[in-house]
Amino acid sequence: MMISMAGFYEILSTMVPLYLAMLLAFASVKWWRMFSDEQCSGINKFVANFAAPLLSFKIIYSNDPYKMNHKLILADTMQKLLILFALMLWVKLTKRGSFDWMITLFSMSTLPNTVILGIPLLRAMYGEESEQILFQIVVLQFVVWYPFLLFLYELREAKGAVGRRVSTAVINGSTVVLEVEARSETRMSSLSLATVDGQGSTTAMNGSVVLVVEASAKENSLGYLNGEEGTANSKEREVQVEAAPPQMRMINLLILVWSKVIKNPNTYSSILGLVWGLISFRFNIRMPKIVDKSVTILSVTGLGLSMFSLGLFMASQPNLMPCGKRNATIAMFVRFSFSVVVMSMCSILLGLQGNLLKVAIVQAALPQGVITFVFAEEYKAHEDILSTAVCFGTLISLPITLAYYFLLSVFHA
Amino acid sequence: MMISMAGFYEILSTMVPLYLAMLLAFASVKWWRMFSDEQCSGINKFVANFAAPLLSFKIIYSNDPYKMNHKLILADTMQKLLILFALMLWVKLTKRGSFDWMITLFSMSTLPNTVILGIPLLRAMYGEESEQILFQIVVLQFVVWYPFLLFLYELREAKGAVGRRVSTAVINGSTVVLEVEARSETRMSSLSLATVDGQGSTTAMNGSVVLVVEASAKENSLGYLNGEEGTANSKEREVQVEAAPPQMRMINLLILVWSKVIKNPNTYSSILGLVWGLISFRFNIRMPKIVDKSVTILSVTGLGLSMFSLGLFMASQPNLMPCGKRNATIAMFVRFSFSVVVMSMCSILLGLQGNLLKVAIVQAALPQGVITFVFAEEYKAHEDILSTAVCFGTLISLPITLAYYFLLSVFHA
Repeated sequence: MMISMAGFYEILSTMVPLYLAMLLAFASVKWWRMFSDEQCSGINKFVANFAAPLLSFKIIYSNDPYKMNHKLILADTMQKLLILFALMLWVKLTKRGSFDWMITLFSMSTLPNTVILGIPLLRAMYGEESEQILFQIVVLQFVVWYPFLLFLYELREAKGAVGRRVSTAVINGSTVVLEVEARSETRMSSLSLATVDGQGSTTAMNGSVVLVVEASAKENSLGYLNGEEGTANSKEREVQVEAAPPQMRMINLLILVWSKVIKNPNTYSSILGLVWGLISFRFNIRMPKIVDKSVTILSVTGLGLSMFSLGLFMASQPNLMPCGKRNATIAMFVRFSFSVVVMSMCSILLGLQGNLLKVAIVQAALPQGVITFVFAEEYKAHEDILSTAVCFGTLISLPITLAYYFLLSVFHA
Repeated sequence: MMISMAGFYEILSTMVPLYLAMLLAFASVKWWRMFSDEQCSGINKFVANFAAPLLSFKIIYSNDPYKMNHKLILADTMQKLLILFALMLWVKLTKRGSFDWMITLFSMSTLPNTVILGIPLLRAMYGEESEQILFQIVVLQFVVWYPFLLFLYELREAKGAVGRRVSTAVINGSTVVLEVEARSETRMSSLSLATVDGQGSTTAMNGSVVLVVEASAKENSLGYLNGEEGTANSKEREVQVEAAPPQMRMINLLILVWSKVIKNPNTYSSILGLVWGLISFRFNIRMPKIVDKSVTILSVTGLGLSMFSLGLFMASQPNLMPCGKRNATIAMFVRFSFSVVVMSMCSILLGLQGNLLKVAIVQAALPQGVITFVFAEEYKAHEDILSTAVCFGTLISLPITLAYYFLLSVFHA
């Protein structure tokens, strides 16, 4: 069965605008020098905190959660667990396997850019119903899989801390030396330092830093350090080190993950959207028009601005393939091939059919989700590879995704 | 004839989201300190250069220019010319009248926020057809009246220059003294200094400054100064002063206005939109879907982001009424009453009727257009009053516009 020219034009006229928005941003920074780094970060902040979460919120609450397809959810979960299991085996049994690579490969094989690129592209390919399919995958992504990825990164930090000592922290320009017993290992796991530009000289700066100090295996202590400063000099400092029992270790890890997850507006918006969807479709209560429009006025900015923001990000990178050709090849293979093969297997195994099967497969071949790069950069773990997966991957994805689309339409004939 | 509750709710559910977007921006700066000044300016730049012009472009090319209503265009033009004439008389005949006040009052009585607040509000009040009506006013605004306002400001600069001497200019940190004959008056009218953050020390900085030197009345000279610098020190400087004949004076003024107008993306987008509209509706050629969607992906961000940007602007002002109560009262009177009375007179005189009449009147009662503040600030002319007209005016406008809406519906009964 051949694809009609009209169908092909429909897909192009959905994707070209998205890529043009990205190109415009890239050009405005690289060629026209319209935006400084700080100005770019203003736009990115708006996207990360308002536009993108409101877009997810809108998509999730607009779709009926009682029409969730259990087979799809199972297939999606099975794909991720299978890959995780395979990677864990690889780490255990081979010399080349490492925990760092396990996380990176897991991230690259399971977390595509579903909201921004996936929904418009698959709607153009398979019609309105594909939104209903994808929103389920989006909910799982934000509520389960991104938090899980954070958990893996935090676990890596905890593992990595053994054999390392970080006993100094720079707070508001002053170096603070944290005294730790020789046998214990120190790790700074969360640094949230509020930098507030004071408007007058009476204005106080508040910085609070939480240092998690982990003993090698025996004990666990949590150090809180609150720094309160005037314009230039430290006024008050307080260090509390609380000893915690060993079994608290995993709990502390989970608390850290949780504290990061709840800071992510995408998690809020997904959970809120799902809760409202459950109420709304159960009791047939529609979102009041005034609320719906209030969400929509900023959520409609999400699509164009997310692509614009992605273009700004590309312009900020030294090049589109900072990790080198070898790693780029691995990244592209994992993203566009391995991921799809596993998803196809799981979907067929669970009996997905028709458009549901096609959507499930093609969404697995989307370029890498931008959030995975944000995490990798935060934890300094293969951030060059994730940058390549996002930038280079997004650039080359269109023909690849189209190839899968054609392939599926031929097979289905 | 009473307004239905449904109609009233329709209006509220259009306006509340716009104001919420504005409030969100205000809160994110004033209360949550999410965005620095520089980050705000990044968002504002995106709005001024991409979102707002694309929104105007989309609105203008989507409406049939052959259905322009000549009576409406005449009424709109007559309102502006009448007000201009009255203000000129006031300047000539009274002691209190001044050229500065003339420009400010003209700006405040003729240039409302038509695209962002006008179109959604009036569509909620009078249905889809009001967009077709307003787009005509938008075209005139951007192609005729904003350039004319710029012309007035430039004329004011030229007048103000008599009796003043500005003979120094700071270029890339160095002060340049421009030698002028004692009898001539100097004015710096356009300063376009490219500040490019060099990425390496070999990188060159290019700054070019155009200084217009005007002789008192007899002669006119144009000074070009090109500064080219290394990282810190000036390498090369060149000053060319060309003498120009006296009759060139007005031409130079017009060139200055033109050079500013063509830098304004709203002018481009309006003219391009009108040209495409003329071709498209004449020959029945539709914009290719791929182009239309490319425009739309960013133009849809225009509404929400413009309001967001307005909220950022409000947060950046020392207070919402920086010009004091007396001037604020004048501003509100001119914007919400004088403007409307003159527009009503002109519209009735020219025989406008029905919804066309109502739309023409209510649009004159919209809050002040943001661009007028940008001009006032650029020329340092009553910028505090224009800031009040925009900020305070936008905040109080909703009940006022609604009052006119109710009044008109009662009269029409």
